[in-house]
Amino acid sequence: MKHLAWSIALVSFGLVGFAHAARAGDEVSPAASNVPGAPTPGIHPDRSITFTLKAPDARSLLVAGGDGLGTGPFPMTKDAEGVWSVTIPPAVPGFHYYWFVLDGVSVNDPSSETYFGYGKETSGVEVPEPGADYYAIRDVPHGEVRAKWYLSKTTGEWRRALIYTPPGYDGNPRTRYPVLFLQHGSGEDETGWTRQGRAQFILDNLIAAGKARPMIVVMDRGYAARAGTPLMKVGPGSSPLDMKPGFTAFEDVVVHDLIPTIDASYRTIPDRQHRAMAGLSMGGMQALFIALHHLDLFAYIASLSGPIVPDPNSKQPLAAAQPAPFDTHTAYEGAFSHPAAFNGRVKLLWLGVGTAEPQLFRGGIGAAVQALKAAGIDVVYFESSGTAHEWQTWRRDLKELAPLLFR
Amino acid sequence: MKHLAWSIALVSFGLVGFAHAARAGDEVSPAASNVPGAPTPGIHPDRSITFTLKAPDARSLLVAGGDGLGTGPFPMTKDAEGVWSVTIPPAVPGFHYYWFVLDGVSVNDPSSETYFGYGKETSGVEVPEPGADYYAIRDVPHGEVRAKWYLSKTTGEWRRALIYTPPGYDGNPRTRYPVLFLQHGSGEDETGWTRQGRAQFILDNLIAAGKARPMIVVMDRGYAARAGTPLMKVGPGSSPLDMKPGFTAFEDVVVHDLIPTIDASYRTIPDRQHRAMAGLSMGGMQALFIALHHLDLFAYIASLSGPIVPDPNSKQPLAAAQPAPFDTHTAYEGAFSHPAAFNGRVKLLWLGVGTAEPQLFRGGIGAAVQALKAAGIDVVYFESSGTAHEWQTWRRDLKELAPLLFR
Repeated sequence: MKHLAWSIALVSFGLVGFAHAARAGDEVSPAASNVPGAPTPGIHPDRSITFTLKAPDARSLLVAGGDGLGTGPFPMTKDAEGVWSVTIPPAVPGFHYYWFVLDGVSVNDPSSETYFGYGKETSGVEVPEPGADYYAIRDVPHGEVRAKWYLSKTTGEWRRALIYTPPGYDGNPRTRYPVLFLQHGSGEDETGWTRQGRAQFILDNLIAAGKARPMIVVMDRGYAARAGTPLMKVGPGSSPLDMKPGFTAFEDVVVHDLIPTIDASYRTIPDRQHRAMAGLSMGGMQALFIALHHLDLFAYIASLSGPIVPDPNSKQPLAAAQPAPFDTHTAYEGAFSHPAAFNGRVKLLWLGVGTAEPQLFRGGIGAAVQALKAAGIDVVYFESSGTAHEWQTWRRDLKELAPLLFR
Repeated sequence: MKHLAWSIALVSFGLVGFAHAARAGDEVSPAASNVPGAPTPGIHPDRSITFTLKAPDARSLLVAGGDGLGTGPFPMTKDAEGVWSVTIPPAVPGFHYYWFVLDGVSVNDPSSETYFGYGKETSGVEVPEPGADYYAIRDVPHGEVRAKWYLSKTTGEWRRALIYTPPGYDGNPRTRYPVLFLQHGSGEDETGWTRQGRAQFILDNLIAAGKARPMIVVMDRGYAARAGTPLMKVGPGSSPLDMKPGFTAFEDVVVHDLIPTIDASYRTIPDRQHRAMAGLSMGGMQALFIALHHLDLFAYIASLSGPIVPDPNSKQPLAAAQPAPFDTHTAYEGAFSHPAAFNGRVKLLWLGVGTAEPQLFRGGIGAAVQALKAAGIDVVYFESSGTAHEWQTWRRDLKELAPLLFR
C-alpha cells in the first residue's frame, strides 16, 4: 500500500548499506546529513566515505560531487545482490554536495537529505571536523529561524526571507538589535546558510560565549527579476554586464522592499551603523555591489569567496582565466578612491577565501586585498586553511566575521 | 567549473522540456512545485501532466506516484535527443508525491523541489484546483513559521519543531493565543504541514477572513525513541502493539518536553480549553492516542484520515483487511465509556476522511463515527469529496477544522 511505503523505506535502509559501510576494525558512522535510519553515506574515522545504492539493473554507477569531496567521479561496483558501493578517499571536513550518475543521469541519493545547490535539490554529506564544535548544536540558548513572507514591489511577487532572531529576542521586548544581511551563493537559495551553513548554531555559540553581539540575520533569496521580466539566466560565460539586470533588480529588492520590511517587522536598530551585508560567492559579489553603492545604508561589508568584479559593466566572462586588474581609483565605480573618507565611513570591509580555492576566487581576492592595502584602505583579510569553494570555508568565515560586527 | 554548474542547470532547464510539455492549442504551465526555471512537470488545462527527463543512455523510464496521481506507473518514451517524456491522464487537484523509476531505481526528478515523504526526500507536483484559493499566498497579513530547537529529556536529543505564529503576534506583545498541535503523517516530518500542506497560508486566509481565531500552530516531528533506544522501525505488517513504544515515547515528548517548551517560549494560553491536538494519518492516530489519554491537557481533538485503532495493545497488523470493531465501552481504553461526561469535557472531537481513500481508513473511520454517534458522543465528521489519502484531503480538513477550534 503506497501510503505505508515509508515504513518499508525505513526498514530497507536498515538492511542495505551497513554491510558495505563496515570494514574490519572500523567505526563507521552514518553522516549527519543522512535521512533518519540510513546507514550510508557512512563516514570512516579517516574521513573516507562509503556510498551505496541498490540498483540491480543499472549498467554503470558513479559518485560525483562538489568542491572538497575529492577528485571524482568515483566508479561504484555491484555485488551479487545488486547493491553498488564505493569507499572514496578521505574528504576535507565539512559539507559537500554530491550525486550519483546512474546510467548517465545525475540523480540524488535517496539516503541523503537534500540541499538546494546547483539550481536544484542535491544530496549532501557532512564530514565531521575533529575538534570543531562551533557549528554544532550545543546546550546553549538558541535563537529561532523564521520564515517571513513579503510582497516585493520590485518583482511584483511574494518572496520568502529566513530571519535568525537571537536567543532572548522574544523575552526582551524592549531590546533592539543590529542586522546582518547574509546571502547564499549561486545555485543555492535562502535556505543555504541555515541548512548547509548552520549559521544559526554558529551565531548561538558565538553569542553564548560573549564573542558576538546578539544580532538579527536576514537570509533572502538572491535572485530577482523586475515585474514582467523573466528571471536572469547566466552561466560560466556570463560577464558582469550580463549579470547586472539580475543584480540591480535584487539591489532594489534589498533597498526598497526587504530593508523596510525587516525594519517594520523586527526590533532592529534601523541605521547604517547597525546594518551589515555579507555573502558567499555570488552573494559576496552582491554584498560588494549593493553595499558599496549604499554606504548610506551599510557600514559593514563582507565578501566570502566572492569573485572580485572591479567593473560591473565589464563584458569579460566572469570565469576568464585572469582576474581583472584592480585599480582602487576606478574599481567599484570609485568607491575606494578616497581612502581616508572610506575608512572613516565604513566600519568594516572584510574579504575571505579558502586556500584551496581556484584562481578565479583566490587570485582576484588576493589582488584586491593587496591593492586596497597599498592604497591605505582598511581591509580585514581571512584565509581558510585547506578548504575550497565550499561551506566549511564559509562557516569559518562567519565564525571570524560575526565577532567583528557592530563593535 | 563545478561551482558555476548551477548556471548550466538553470539554462538547461530552459532548453529541455518545454517542447515536450507544449501541445497544440494548449496553455501548459510549470507546476508551482518545480524548481525555479524548470518547465516540467507541466500542467495542462485539463490537469493532465507532462514529465520529462534527459537520459540518453537509460533503457527504461517510468513515472510513479502517490495517491491521487493516477493509476501508474506510466512508461515514458525517448526522443532522438535522448529526452524521455510522458503526459499522464488528468490528476486529482492538489499535491502529489511522485518519482521516476530509472532502469529500475526510484529517483527524484531534478526539476522538482523535494518534499519529505516515504521516509526520504521525494519529488512532488502541485496540480491547481479551480476556484480554490484558500491555500494560496494572498495579499493578507501573514504569520511566520519559526524553527524552534529544544532539548528533549525523553529522547536525550535536540529536536526541531516548526511554529506558526499568527499575523500580529510580534506587534501585540500582551496578547496570548491558543495552541494547535498539528502532526504530519507516516514517512513525513515536521516540514510536511507547511511545505506540502500550506497550513500557514490556510491559517492566514482564515484569520484574515475572520473565520478562525488567531492561534499558534506547533508542528513537531512525530518520531521519538527514548534515550538509549533505537528509533522504531515499523511496516505494513506492524500492529498497534508494535508501534506503541514509538508512540508512547512521542507522547512523553509532547507532554513533558514540547508543551512545557511551547508554554515557556510563546505567549500561549496554557490550559486545556486553549489547546488542541490534530494530525493526519499516523499523526491522527497519535492525536487520538495522546489527547484521549490527556484530557487534562487537550479539549480539542481531531484525526484527519487517521487509522482507527480501538485497542492500542492489539497484535493485529494495522493494514489488516477488516478494521477492528469499535466498541465505545472499551475503545481507546474506555475514553468514550461515559458519553455525557466526555461531551462535557471535550469541546470538539473531529474525524475526517477522503471519499477516495481505501477501506483501511474510510471503513474504520466510518464505523467509529457511527458507533460514537449511536453512543451519544458528539463527533464532527467531514468527508473530502473525491480525494484520496493525500494532502488535498488534509488541506480541506484544516480549512474545515480550524474555524471550530477555541470557540
